[in-house]
Amino acid sequence: MDWRSYQNRHFHDQDTGFFLDLAGLDISAADSADFEKRFKDIHAAMTALEAGEIANPDEGRMVGHYWLRATDLAPSDEIRAEIESTLEDIVSFSADIHAGVLRAADNQTFTDLLVIGIGGSALGPQFVSDALAPHDPALKAHFLDNTDPAGIDRVLDRLDHRFHRTLVVVISKSGGTPETRNGMVETMERFKGHDIDFARQAVAITGDNSKLYERARAENWLKIFPMWDWVGGRTSETSVVGMLPAALQGIDFRAILAGACSMDAVTRQREPWHNPAALLCLAWYVATEGRGSRDMVILPYKDSLLLFSRYLQQLIMESLGKEFDLDGKRVEQGISVYGNKGSTDQHAYVQQLRDGINNFFVTFIEVLKDREGSSIPVDGVNTSGDYLFGFLQGTREALAERGRASITLSIPEVTPFAIGALIALYERTVGFYAALVNINAYHQPGVEAGKQAAVETLAILNRVRAVLKGAEAPVNLVDLKQLMGIEVETELIYRIIRRLHANGQVVLASGSWSEPDTLKFKSTTNT
Amino acid sequence: MDWRSYQNRHFHDQDTGFFLDLAGLDISAADSADFEKRFKDIHAAMTALEAGEIANPDEGRMVGHYWLRATDLAPSDEIRAEIESTLEDIVSFSADIHAGVLRAADNQTFTDLLVIGIGGSALGPQFVSDALAPHDPALKAHFLDNTDPAGIDRVLDRLDHRFHRTLVVVISKSGGTPETRNGMVETMERFKGHDIDFARQAVAITGDNSKLYERARAENWLKIFPMWDWVGGRTSETSVVGMLPAALQGIDFRAILAGACSMDAVTRQREPWHNPAALLCLAWYVATEGRGSRDMVILPYKDSLLLFSRYLQQLIMESLGKEFDLDGKRVEQGISVYGNKGSTDQHAYVQQLRDGINNFFVTFIEVLKDREGSSIPVDGVNTSGDYLFGFLQGTREALAERGRASITLSIPEVTPFAIGALIALYERTVGFYAALVNINAYHQPGVEAGKQAAVETLAILNRVRAVLKGAEAPVNLVDLKQLMGIEVETELIYRIIRRLHANGQVVLASGSWSEPDTLKFKSTTNT
Repeated sequence: MDWRSYQNRHFHDQDTGFFLDLAGLDISAADSADFEKRFKDIHAAMTALEAGEIANPDEGRMVGHYWLRATDLAPSDEIRAEIESTLEDIVSFSADIHAGVLRAADNQTFTDLLVIGIGGSALGPQFVSDALAPHDPALKAHFLDNTDPAGIDRVLDRLDHRFHRTLVVVISKSGGTPETRNGMVETMERFKGHDIDFARQAVAITGDNSKLYERARAENWLKIFPMWDWVGGRTSETSVVGMLPAALQGIDFRAILAGACSMDAVTRQREPWHNPAALLCLAWYVATEGRGSRDMVILPYKDSLLLFSRYLQQLIMESLGKEFDLDGKRVEQGISVYGNKGSTDQHAYVQQLRDGINNFFVTFIEVLKDREGSSIPVDGVNTSGDYLFGFLQGTREALAERGRASITLSIPEVTPFAIGALIALYERTVGFYAALVNINAYHQPGVEAGKQAAVETLAILNRVRAVLKGAEAPVNLVDLKQLMGIEVETELIYRIIRRLHANGQVVLASGSWSEPDTLKFKSTTNT
Repeated sequence: MDWRSYQNRHFHDQDTGFFLDLAGLDISAADSADFEKRFKDIHAAMTALEAGEIANPDEGRMVGHYWLRATDLAPSDEIRAEIESTLEDIVSFSADIHAGVLRAADNQTFTDLLVIGIGGSALGPQFVSDALAPHDPALKAHFLDNTDPAGIDRVLDRLDHRFHRTLVVVISKSGGTPETRNGMVETMERFKGHDIDFARQAVAITGDNSKLYERARAENWLKIFPMWDWVGGRTSETSVVGMLPAALQGIDFRAILAGACSMDAVTRQREPWHNPAALLCLAWYVATEGRGSRDMVILPYKDSLLLFSRYLQQLIMESLGKEFDLDGKRVEQGISVYGNKGSTDQHAYVQQLRDGINNFFVTFIEVLKDREGSSIPVDGVNTSGDYLFGFLQGTREALAERGRASITLSIPEVTPFAIGALIALYERTVGFYAALVNINAYHQPGVEAGKQAAVETLAILNRVRAVLKGAEAPVNLVDLKQLMGIEVETELIYRIIRRLHANGQVVLASGSWSEPDTLKFKSTTNT
């Protein structure tokens, strides 16, 4: 690409110091003109959303994460005052924890932070912690983000001798997320085993009058912070969900908010070529033909941004992966997102990106500043950072040579301000893109079916346990199905029994796992 | 699916305890019959490979990772003896480290292990460490797997007060991998700063007479382990590359080898429906139409398997992502791989999997055993593990309901034996699949171009530095391009200068980054 054309595909924002370069994409004049025309409506829709219009029609909700970093935009004085007082609460609560004004049960100062949450209540805090937590944080963060018993043990074993100095933050908007509840209950059990008063060291972040809210009130937890109805889980990083853990670790959360605010300002520009979120949106549209035909490979060349792709998987895939558009037409939209970090991933799968199936576009994220302090030459001449730059540039060229599409985003360094800007950039881009392809980015109707099926599975699991317990002689799967007294697939009974067997709740009386029909079981609790 | 059909799609191996279930895939009788016919040739090709035939024709190499866990299969007595003596070396070296027979420079016992490597020399050791390292490992493992200066600092800062007790293992087959060399040089510099003799605490794993080999010999490093020509990077986990770090952490590496050996045995079966690798291969073929038309989403419902998808990204994408088939026909093959863990990922992107673009198939990995020890009920009735199972089953059903394809692999628990078996299962499946689509799984021609372009970038970077240093007055980009005296894109000069500026090596004399043509620069070293 000649230098003149390159400059036309190049964007710089002075306030954030971000550069965006679309030279690696084949954007035709027609694509561009078409987008410019449609961007008027997209921009108008976003303006209405920011003003408090119901932008999530299915759930009848406002979408207000932009107000979190510019409270004067909040649609009512009440909301504005609530945001501001909550931010002040975060400051004073963290200061009290750090200063030892608030102490753990046995009067020690807190050293560790255990965040219990999943999805939107974990991915943002984990990303920010990994990107920004200082070498020697005010509190060291740990996360329970699943209901895996061995995984819970691993985290809690690591903390076992420090529970008496661990602050626990439980995050659940609805207050009823089972994975989070399970992590909390297992943690409470450990605290009990050590005779430590959980409530005195526990903080809840949850919606008003949720189950978690009621529990925290009833048990007199140390503190309850609000999670507002108008903040969605996947856009909650700049709410208490992200800002409280950040503040507790000693990360300058106000700078994260300032960075997001600054990015929000530039992404409100009406002129798409002056608006980096509009440009990213256009790039996604062109690269995926507006229907997810290519995967988005996220390659930040910076170790501390390793978790950004996991964060984006939720933000992008949960927002854009929709069956119907806003007019009720079946569209099966979405963009698949993956990636870890460069140049590491070059040694994993750049082979396929360059030579193999052309089903992706890369977003290179370059961090301009190498490190704090100076660098030594590692080969007599070049520094490690020179090499990192060389590999990014080399891969970019090698992919371009083969007609593989890429976007390059360059950011000045990994600071709280830049991370706030990065999050805000992608939030806005998702909002624009959803408007462009006419879908609701703010609901998630598809996850209910799996949750419902899980509840039914648990009921069947308990029925299997009860039936086995009641059986006098060993039973086979067909008998067991009869005894269940409810309509259920033999396959599911088999899968349930297999797991109960592995966990010592069922013994095999006879038969071979290779031929499930030959198997006979009995419960261990009636032998 | 009825129970009879389910059993026909169900496989169990007694020795490893693995179950594989393909009920979630629509495999027609014709697909199956066709595969059974072709599998004869695939099986024959794999038998020839295991016997020492040149299976990587481009590089004229044998492919011998199977011999590592069944030395009697090695094609010569010499290779067999070499493998066996190396395994004994790993045992005795690790024992000497653990017992304090081998000590750090100031006579202290070692407490930490720093592994420096990238790609095949990092992904396997990282996966195995995260999956299997005990709570209180013999040596605590840390990894340098990139050339990011801030990332290097982060790892080395964490170790800073323990360098005098840190064993460093540098892994590079060719001995010339720049990222690894850079990590090594920066680590040596830190050791020097602490006045610690690096060589006395350093171990090399590398090919005979490589640059790294020569250096380790010349500097009299503590130990040099071999990396054989016939072991590829992405299939090197069961070589010294994986086994030495495992042994040093106190992981039973012989059990990993035994598990791999056991899986190798069952995946040598001629009858595809008795061979889990053949079945996985068939499943991949059907799900992706033999041309990567669907992404492989890896969802292990177990926190300790989080890194398995990253490990598979390399194993699968680097092996299968090929431009040409073995007959020289352009095929642009490959399968994209991503995923983290369940049920966590359900809160990230199952929305898209169920409702959005149908461009994937899921591999659920179930771990039958919940945890060591017993579980409490978290809701009065069910355990955390019951919920984990419920979510897996629920999501599996919710996806099936919408015609989304899935495979379910169930393994007994996460042990060294099971991890060995898991690795061997996927290695063999990749080998079969490559034979099925007629490509060379064992080379990576596509990565050279990027490396070459990176070398050229470094040369241009240094030329820019020199020219700027020599310039008396501030220069703009067009002038700079003239002064370079070599053919180079203005864009690249601009990108180089921008980074030099962010790192304090160039100052901006005038102009605005928004209009690159207005910029004038001078070097800081001549001001």
